[in-house]
Amino acid sequence: MERVDHLGHERRKAEFDVEAMKVVWAGSKRVLEISDRISRLVASDPVFKKDDRTTLSRKDLFNNTLRKAAHAWKRINELRLTEEEASRLRFYVDQPSYVDLHWGMFVPAIKGQGTEEQHKKWLPLAYKMQIIGCYAQTELGHGSNVQGLETTATYDPKSEEFIIHSPTLTASKWWPGGLGKVSTHAVVYARLLTDGRDYGVHGFIVQLRSLDDHLPLPGITVGDIGTKFGNGAYNSMDNGVLRFDHVRIPRDQMLMRVSQVTKEGKYLQSDVPRQLVYGTMVYVRQTIVADASNALSRAVCIAVRYSAVRRQFGSQDGGPELQVIDYKTQQSRLFPLLASAYAFRFVGEWLKWLYTDVTQRLQANDFSTLPEAHACTAGLKSLTTSVTADGIEECRKLCGGHGYLCSSGLPELFAVYVPTCTYEGDNVVLLLQVARFLVKTVSQLASGKEPVGTTAYYRRVEHLVQCACDVQRAEDWLKPSVVLEAFEARAIRMAITCAKNLSKAQSPEEGFAALSADLVEAAVAHCQLIIVSKFIDKVQEDIEGQGVKEQLQILCSVYALSLLHKHLGDFLSTSCITPKQGALANDMLRSLYAQVRPNAVALVDAFNYTDHYLGSVLGQYDGNVYPNLYEAAWKEPLNDTVVPDGYDEYIRPVLKQKFRISRL
Amino acid sequence: MERVDHLGHERRKAEFDVEAMKVVWAGSKRVLEISDRISRLVASDPVFKKDDRTTLSRKDLFNNTLRKAAHAWKRINELRLTEEEASRLRFYVDQPSYVDLHWGMFVPAIKGQGTEEQHKKWLPLAYKMQIIGCYAQTELGHGSNVQGLETTATYDPKSEEFIIHSPTLTASKWWPGGLGKVSTHAVVYARLLTDGRDYGVHGFIVQLRSLDDHLPLPGITVGDIGTKFGNGAYNSMDNGVLRFDHVRIPRDQMLMRVSQVTKEGKYLQSDVPRQLVYGTMVYVRQTIVADASNALSRAVCIAVRYSAVRRQFGSQDGGPELQVIDYKTQQSRLFPLLASAYAFRFVGEWLKWLYTDVTQRLQANDFSTLPEAHACTAGLKSLTTSVTADGIEECRKLCGGHGYLCSSGLPELFAVYVPTCTYEGDNVVLLLQVARFLVKTVSQLASGKEPVGTTAYYRRVEHLVQCACDVQRAEDWLKPSVVLEAFEARAIRMAITCAKNLSKAQSPEEGFAALSADLVEAAVAHCQLIIVSKFIDKVQEDIEGQGVKEQLQILCSVYALSLLHKHLGDFLSTSCITPKQGALANDMLRSLYAQVRPNAVALVDAFNYTDHYLGSVLGQYDGNVYPNLYEAAWKEPLNDTVVPDGYDEYIRPVLKQKFRISRL
Repeated sequence: MERVDHLGHERRKAEFDVEAMKVVWAGSKRVLEISDRISRLVASDPVFKKDDRTTLSRKDLFNNTLRKAAHAWKRINELRLTEEEASRLRFYVDQPSYVDLHWGMFVPAIKGQGTEEQHKKWLPLAYKMQIIGCYAQTELGHGSNVQGLETTATYDPKSEEFIIHSPTLTASKWWPGGLGKVSTHAVVYARLLTDGRDYGVHGFIVQLRSLDDHLPLPGITVGDIGTKFGNGAYNSMDNGVLRFDHVRIPRDQMLMRVSQVTKEGKYLQSDVPRQLVYGTMVYVRQTIVADASNALSRAVCIAVRYSAVRRQFGSQDGGPELQVIDYKTQQSRLFPLLASAYAFRFVGEWLKWLYTDVTQRLQANDFSTLPEAHACTAGLKSLTTSVTADGIEECRKLCGGHGYLCSSGLPELFAVYVPTCTYEGDNVVLLLQVARFLVKTVSQLASGKEPVGTTAYYRRVEHLVQCACDVQRAEDWLKPSVVLEAFEARAIRMAITCAKNLSKAQSPEEGFAALSADLVEAAVAHCQLIIVSKFIDKVQEDIEGQGVKEQLQILCSVYALSLLHKHLGDFLSTSCITPKQGALANDMLRSLYAQVRPNAVALVDAFNYTDHYLGSVLGQYDGNVYPNLYEAAWKEPLNDTVVPDGYDEYIRPVLKQKFRISRL
Repeated sequence: MERVDHLGHERRKAEFDVEAMKVVWAGSKRVLEISDRISRLVASDPVFKKDDRTTLSRKDLFNNTLRKAAHAWKRINELRLTEEEASRLRFYVDQPSYVDLHWGMFVPAIKGQGTEEQHKKWLPLAYKMQIIGCYAQTELGHGSNVQGLETTATYDPKSEEFIIHSPTLTASKWWPGGLGKVSTHAVVYARLLTDGRDYGVHGFIVQLRSLDDHLPLPGITVGDIGTKFGNGAYNSMDNGVLRFDHVRIPRDQMLMRVSQVTKEGKYLQSDVPRQLVYGTMVYVRQTIVADASNALSRAVCIAVRYSAVRRQFGSQDGGPELQVIDYKTQQSRLFPLLASAYAFRFVGEWLKWLYTDVTQRLQANDFSTLPEAHACTAGLKSLTTSVTADGIEECRKLCGGHGYLCSSGLPELFAVYVPTCTYEGDNVVLLLQVARFLVKTVSQLASGKEPVGTTAYYRRVEHLVQCACDVQRAEDWLKPSVVLEAFEARAIRMAITCAKNLSKAQSPEEGFAALSADLVEAAVAHCQLIIVSKFIDKVQEDIEGQGVKEQLQILCSVYALSLLHKHLGDFLSTSCITPKQGALANDMLRSLYAQVRPNAVALVDAFNYTDHYLGSVLGQYDGNVYPNLYEAAWKEPLNDTVVPDGYDEYIRPVLKQKFRISRL
């Protein structure tokens, strides 16, 4: 079939330098170059082909995943890729596997919680993948409440060993990725029992499978927990179940950087500050926010391109129908998501800076900004992943019926993404942590404690509780200072209302429980403000490339004003704006959509995704949607035979009314 | 394993007669008896087992579906089930198949659009399933815009045949269920070309496959369009692609009730009113609303029961942790969905009445209420299916990590449900139809045309545009009249604002396009009012059973006030209520949640779902969640072998650093 660029006319409409925008999106020319090179490398390697993934049985999918993981490791070694390149390569392979947990959780856990001796023993093995590790924390009965874990590690001073045990059914380790079928080792979290006391949850390195024949070691029951949401998706991962029957490990396999158990069984704390663990949390959550912008931008890219190809209704005088991207209903759902993808990109970039800042302060024993940084990353993890999960599904719906086909890529993208809302902190639990921090910040205002970082606007509380928005014309909503003040006023007023209502409760904890739904809303308001403010900061930087800054300014306004419209109740009930000003914001939003429209396809081209990575017949660069859909259908296994396998047994007897003699 | 009722303590808390509520939910004692009997019949038949469905390959799943469909047909005949019982049986088998389209679309299309002669010829064959039919309307290039279909039916007066043809790739029929592998016949929609003119889209009965060997007839290319969203789910259905290469059918296979083509090729209209087609549409959409309450109630049942079993955090003095259903954040997400399930049930019941009313009027040639009834059913289809799709996913998230496992039943329920938002009218397109009707109703107010049915409140426009809500205490929000007036005022004011803004536009069509996002919001406001008002009507009826009416009153208030909170921006910006009144509504809502809490499990028991139908290890009646989850995991095919199949080829070479000699 001839290859034409069906989106060429759209690309010619763009009012900005797409190549320059690619640099902005990637973060730097260097990162763009690496991403571009590695993504093409993956796309051109037949082993990494993934277009049949959603039709594979679980076993075939899993085998295919093992093959890709092994091949990726081979290529990484052959090409002597740097750590950064290797990590990009795993990213573009785009198939969850045990490797993610090995590098993303097992190695960091040993690095962060192990002693230098433990580093020397275990890290070289892990770096060469001579052992493969996972992170066994959650149990059948406990996810969010880590302190409630039931697995025990009882110290036996006679043998100088810990006895790892699963005392109940609900103590079964449940969910760890890579555990089910592959990992040879795990960092296992268990209650430390020694010296007659329960010292709470600690980490232990436990070997699970023989390095000779891969069989589980004595006392260990391990397996896969079963099929998960969606075709392909996370079913490439062997999330596992694990039970211990009095499994003994040497004393030196407890991760002892922060606390130790002596040979005699005494429990000691080292002088390493416990806050260090928060540094790791900031790091992990920063990567989750970056991933949110990846996943959302990918869905938006598919939906924008398809919306520019798809035509429906509105034909005039027998001409072509209207592109669906020209419908305002489509724009009002799609463009805020496009703007969100950019917003999350920039707040993710800022979080990288925050992580560096926190790390430097920790090294200098300065813990003053830690609670704020912790609340901020918790809230941003929650907000960006929730919006992304819902946004992917919205993009799928925006692709109409064809979005329901696996070949559109969107069902799998949704299914593989949604667990992010639950892991590394359930999104609602995280927002409650943010709310708790905000209420505390409010209560400390009187005591003169200076709010820091993303709560610095609390210093202007007196102004913010009484200021009136001075928007008089729709264009006034384009002023960053106006938008920022409205979001600040809304956030602080909601937090203060919560704090006031809490103070009426019988006890703080009862009040917190009773008002938690309101507290969540106050936390959301604060987090949205953070993202808006970081987007505003970004567009106030020097940005190279013709028209690039202008596009980002438009997207920034779209992001803020679409939130304002969606949460109009907040802004009005706190009297931050008037109904008239709300209507003006909506008018402005409508005209901003018209400005985004000619640039929409170019704005998703700037993500620089290969067709392989996108994995969607609807989103391919050339926009050749219908032949691609048609070709993809014939690859369906059911089409292997013209007459389906069950015809003689189950269709013919129905048609011929011959049930009595059928085998049914 | 011993069978205990882990939810017994919850059931004892209930403050109402659950058996009486079952009757209310079912609609009558008779319907409850039938549903109960048939659901148990299905649940006890091993052929209808479905707990392995999400692990089957597409081919195996499809074969399993054919088997179930044939077995169901056999049982229906053996037991001489009535039409109502047979339809319930298909419902409880709970696996989409060609049978749904045969009975739900093919037969009704012939009934509604065929002449009496055509009825005599085709219906007996269809009733006995001696032919199996599907409904071939949508094409690769056209879904919502039926008038844009490209397939042609050209009349050839010489042979007195129509020539059915697919002139382009985008003319390929695409999506029809049952088409891909099973149907022997189809009602095909195609542009009628005769007498030198294009008369637009008409329906034709076309045989697709031989009744001898099931092979496609000459000129027909047919197949399955490929894997769809989710495990199991709609993959049991053979949605198909179909192309015609000049396929000839006899003249009498055009469905000729409304218009005919004579032997000579003249196009004639009969005197049957074209509006009849709207009657069918009202019927189909009424069943979709009923299905929404089924799907949502099923998800809510799973989430409520699991939330009552699951405990996390909040242990005091070493006692058990808190049930997650006691968290206000959980209640504020879950209870509005529980209330919505009931609300949709009652509005669905009312729609049945509406259908009867419309049918009677049509028979009396009274078309006066048709536009209103059409707008109303379009809007309710859109609203209930969107809320249900999002609500199922919300219920899945409310089940935390375990909701992500297929064994929870929720991923499949979501995946199988979401296409409802797109088929039988895309939900956004439908809301625009509602908006168009509302704007017209506003414009006709001046001319004195009396608004009817669900727009009857427009008669009180003068009052509603200036009335002020007189809520002073939270309890005032329990008065149905107060709630109703607030919803009416909001809906009418939003519609009037849209109408005013439209009148400023250069042309009505340009205005409609530019303001479509606002119009959609006005339509939503109107549809929410309908559901609220029908719920209020319901609870004002006589309702038997101790405490039943009280529970429904509480749910009705939860439904209305949770909507008010969610759309606070609408109510405030139209000045229907004050911020203070909004806060009071929220206070009331919180205390209503506390009243729902002890009754929550009993309120989902009232749905009377068997464990088979629920299909969820998290939602089983006995609440024995953890052993059920654990058992389900070991059925995973990956656990057939302890060491996974790919070990020698893909894991061992990684661990042993032996890539060079591996087969990779």
